Formats: sequence, C-alpha cells, structure tokens
Amino acid sequence: MYSVEELKQKINKEIDAWSEELNQKEQKELYAPVKYALGMGGKRLRPVLLLMTANMFQEEIDNGLTAAIAVEIFHNFTLLHDDIMDKAEMRRNNPTVHKKFSENKAILSGDAMAFLSYKLLLKCRCEKLFEITQLFTETALEVCEGQQYDMDFENRQNVTQAEYLEMIKLKTAVLIACSLKAGAQLSDADDETAKLIYDFGINLGMAFQLQDDLLDTFGNQQTFGKKIGGDIVANKKTFLLIEALEKANTEQKSQLKKWLAKTDFNPDEKIKAVSGIFNQINIKKRTEEKIDFYFFSASEILQKIQLEEKRKMPLKNLIQKMLGRKF
Amino acid sequence: MYSVEELKQKINKEIDAWSEELNQKEQKELYAPVKYALGMGGKRLRPVLLLMTANMFQEEIDNGLTAAIAVEIFHNFTLLHDDIMDKAEMRRNNPTVHKKFSENKAILSGDAMAFLSYKLLLKCRCEKLFEITQLFTETALEVCEGQQYDMDFENRQNVTQAEYLEMIKLKTAVLIACSLKAGAQLSDADDETAKLIYDFGINLGMAFQLQDDLLDTFGNQQTFGKKIGGDIVANKKTFLLIEALEKANTEQKSQLKKWLAKTDFNPDEKIKAVSGIFNQINIKKRTEEKIDFYFFSASEILQKIQLEEKRKMPLKNLIQKMLGRKF
Repeated sequence: MYSVEELKQKINKEIDAWSEELNQKEQKELYAPVKYALGMGGKRLRPVLLLMTANMFQEEIDNGLTAAIAVEIFHNFTLLHDDIMDKAEMRRNNPTVHKKFSENKAILSGDAMAFLSYKLLLKCRCEKLFEITQLFTETALEVCEGQQYDMDFENRQNVTQAEYLEMIKLKTAVLIACSLKAGAQLSDADDETAKLIYDFGINLGMAFQLQDDLLDTFGNQQTFGKKIGGDIVANKKTFLLIEALEKANTEQKSQLKKWLAKTDFNPDEKIKAVSGIFNQINIKKRTEEKIDFYFFSASEILQKIQLEEKRKMPLKNLIQKMLGRKF
Repeated sequence: MYSVEELKQKINKEIDAWSEELNQKEQKELYAPVKYALGMGGKRLRPVLLLMTANMFQEEIDNGLTAAIAVEIFHNFTLLHDDIMDKAEMRRNNPTVHKKFSENKAILSGDAMAFLSYKLLLKCRCEKLFEITQLFTETALEVCEGQQYDMDFENRQNVTQAEYLEMIKLKTAVLIACSLKAGAQLSDADDETAKLIYDFGINLGMAFQLQDDLLDTFGNQQTFGKKIGGDIVANKKTFLLIEALEKANTEQKSQLKKWLAKTDFNPDEKIKAVSGIFNQINIKKRTEEKIDFYFFSASEILQKIQLEEKRKMPLKNLIQKMLGRKF
C-alpha cells in the first residue's frame, strides 16, 4: 500500500505532466490561470483521499489517477470563483487568480476547470464510471448550494449552529466524501461499503472544515497560507463566533456585538479584541471538542467497514495525524 | 415527424416542469436566477436542433428531452457568465442576471447551471450516453476557449478574418454542432452520419453567428432583444468591422479609425457614423454573402447524408427559414 507521501508524489507528477499538456494548447490565455492555480500546490487532500481509498481495495490504483486529478481541479475551480465572491486577495501565500490576472479570467478559467475536471474524470477506465460521474455532478451542485448559504449568512444577523453545520457539510464535507467514495467505487467496492466510506468522509470533512475555522483565528500564518483573523475582520459567522455568541455572558455579548457592528476599525485591534473574548469563553477548546466529535464518529464508521484492519490503517493514521493538528 | 413549433412546445413544457422542481428545492437563492434566466424564453434553438435531428432517425424522441434541456441550460450558463464579462445590461429585453440579482449570484448560479446541465444529460437513457457526455465536455471547453479569444480580441488592434471566424466557430458553432450530433447519437445514427451532421452544424452555426452580428447593426431592436449598435459602440471586432477595415478606402479607413479611437462620444452619433461607412462599403451585402456561403456548405453536407429526402426536410426547411432571416 502507498503512503500519503507516495500518493502525493504520484498526484503531483500527474498534475505536472498534465499542466505540460495544457502548455501545448493554442489558447494560452485561458489555461495560464489554470496552471497558476494548480501550481500553487496545496495539500492535495482530496486526490490523496481518493487514491488512498482505492488502495484499500486494490494494489494497482493508476486507473484512478485521472479521477484524482479531476477532484483536485474541481476543488481549485471552486477556489477561483469563491475568491472572487469573497474578494479574497491571498491564497496559499500567493495572490488569488482574480488579483493576479483579472476577475474575468478567474470566471472563465474557472469555468474551463470545471469542464476539465469532467474531461479527466471521463478518461478514467472503470466499471462504475457512470455512477461516479453522477455522484460527482450531485456533489458539484451541493458545493454550489453550500457556497450560496455561506453568502446568505453574511447578510443575516442570526445563524444557528445547525444551519452553519449544514452549510459546511455542503460546502466542504460532501466533496471530501465524494472523493473517498469515488475511490472505493473505482476499486469496485460493494455498495454498502461505498456508502459507509461516504459517511466516514462527511464526518472527516466536518472535522476538517472546523479545524480550518479554528486555524483562521488561532493558526500560524505561514503554515495556514492566509492572513490570520480574516474571518473575524469579515464578521464571518463561523462555528467560533456562533458558539461565542451563544455562550457569552451579557458583557461579553455586548462587546462582541459592538465589534460586529463597527464599520470603521483597525483590523488588528478587532482581531485582538474578538479573539480575546473567544479566549475568555474557551472557544478554542469548545471547537476542538466538536472537531473530536466528528473524528470519533468517523472512527466508529471505519470500524463497521468489513475489511482487514491493515487495509484500513491509512485512513486511521490520517485521523490520528489530523487529531494532532499537523496535517 | 414533429414541426419546429411542436418541438418548441415540448421543450418549453419540459423546462416549465423542471423549473417547478427547482422551486421545491430548499436553497431558493441559488436557483432563483436559474429560473429567471430560463424563464426569459428565447428561440430554444439548440434543444430544437437536438430533437429535430433525433427525429430524423426515429419517431419517438422523448428519451432525448433531458439532453435537449441540458444543452439549453448550458447555453444559458454561458450567457450568465459572458454577460458579466461583457458588462451587458440587457438580454432578451430583460435585465441580465448580474444586473437583476448581483455579479456573485450570476457567477454562482451560472456554475450551478453548468452542473445542472450534466445532471440532466446523465438522466438521458441511450446507448451512446458516454460518447455524448464526452462530446458535450469537449464542446464546453471549446466554448470557453472561444469566449477567451473574444475577450483577447478586444485588446488587440488587428484581428484577421480567419481569426474571427475561428473564434465564432468555438464560441457559437461548436455548441450548435454538438446539439445536432447529440441528437443523431441519441437515435443511434452511425458514426459517419453523426460526423456529417456535426459538420452541417458547424456551417449552420457560423451562418447563425454572422447573422447575429449583422442584426446587431442592421436589425430591429424589438425582435433582436438587445440594443441595436452595441457592437459598434463597444468597438467589437465583428466580421462587419474587420471586413470594413479591409475594404475601406483611405478616407473611410481614417474615419473608421477615428471613431474606434474616440473615448468620449455620443453613442447614437457613433452608431450612425460607423453604420454609415458600413453602408458605403456594402458591408450588409458582403456579410449576407458570407452567411449564404455557410448555408450553402451546410446544404451540400446535408445532401451527402444517406437518408430519405423527407426525413431531411426539417433541417432543409430550417436553412430556408434562416435564409429568409425570419428565424
């Protein structure tokens, strides 16, 4: 079985070869932002998960490589468009595509990436390709729905925890679950197992997004790749803020609301003040508990999968690694 | 065999039923612009062509209905995004989606439409669905390439006729050709016939786009649905302008270049002056000749298709109707 590092190498090699192919295309303007976006690197989490799951059921996983690249390209497509909508300027320590090129380019090259992901997916030779393509399409729509909820929440005063969790499920968890399930389907796993893998992925994805929220406030800028405190500055209704508003005493709540209402402020001062209140209410610990809940649920589902223990090790190790907040 | 009117009714009925389904979705914000865009109507040219071609080979064409709706939704997705990039304010006598809703909504709901088109396409039950999905994906990429060329040309002084024709082939003709070929494949036409149908579609699409260019300057605002003269105001390098610059005498060329260089002008005055020069150089007639050339090529290809004459009648009639500039 392949290690995470080996899978990542496989994926990066394939992306490099494929980017080289893009270079040969006549329409260079359209594909330059695609190359730029994919060249920024990143964790390659989704394609790694896809191949890792395929590898649970079969030794040879090269038939899944184009599908793995497809989910990575799809994910990057969503980043291009989300970054326009969110007016984000930095991504992985680099200017976002619409800043580096233009908004029009980020729209159009993003569109091209969506279709490139289908093109690669359809290249994948396996018996369940039709089912995988259907799952991929349903997932893509759910991701759009999630992004719309995210934008809707910006204009709303009150967002409940349940609404927030549903939003991140759609925006983040379903694509992680889809990547995992596609890997299982590529290796022709039976339907029941594929379903369990999907549910495992939803829980993993929830934990992953909550961890991302946590890092946005309590992370390290260099490893996180974005400016710390961005969510606080933008009044993003993350789990941290929703939980804080729910658990705050009268004084803390009025302080929080004062900062949320301010239109003219020094960003660093706001980050310091709001994260100070978060600290008073133990928000870091509360969020970590929620993350652990999802990791625990994922582990439980993994136990139900009928497979030799050693074949489940990569996914188990992944959870352990993520619990250690090192991934 | 069905008439164009009957096909259009079938399509509109299916779109209405499907829009009603969208209405039931929980995420209303995302789908409202989709309903709005599809509710504006339009000629439904692409789905009509798809079903018309399917009908050349079989009587029963209902298995192609979701594929027909898919190409219409895909076409509308491109309009949503193109209208943002072109800063277009009106479409089919209505505000464009990004004007009526917002740019973010036009981006995201446009994305959703791209995936909705795959969702509908994948619902279509036919033996060649995989080939159709591949063709659809290749076509989508070509359409993006065409739109990129269109934007590139805006910033270039000299665009040749050949470059312009390649651009409209990618931006417009390939989707028309894809719709026609998909119809043939749905009805399980043999590969050689499907290829001829595709080539027919390219020629039809070229004629169609050149006619659209012509109408933008010489059409009637009410039936055209957009403001007449928009291309002139925006210095769009259409066939009309490229041909005019090529055929103009020294005085006409310097007049044209003067208007192209002006940044501060009265739009109506510019439209009047530039179309005046077009008239001096017989641009309307020259463009009509080019359109007829493509219609003639389409007719020739149609003759090569091995099929009873009466089954080719709908496509023949369509050409006749378009030649009469009434479609």
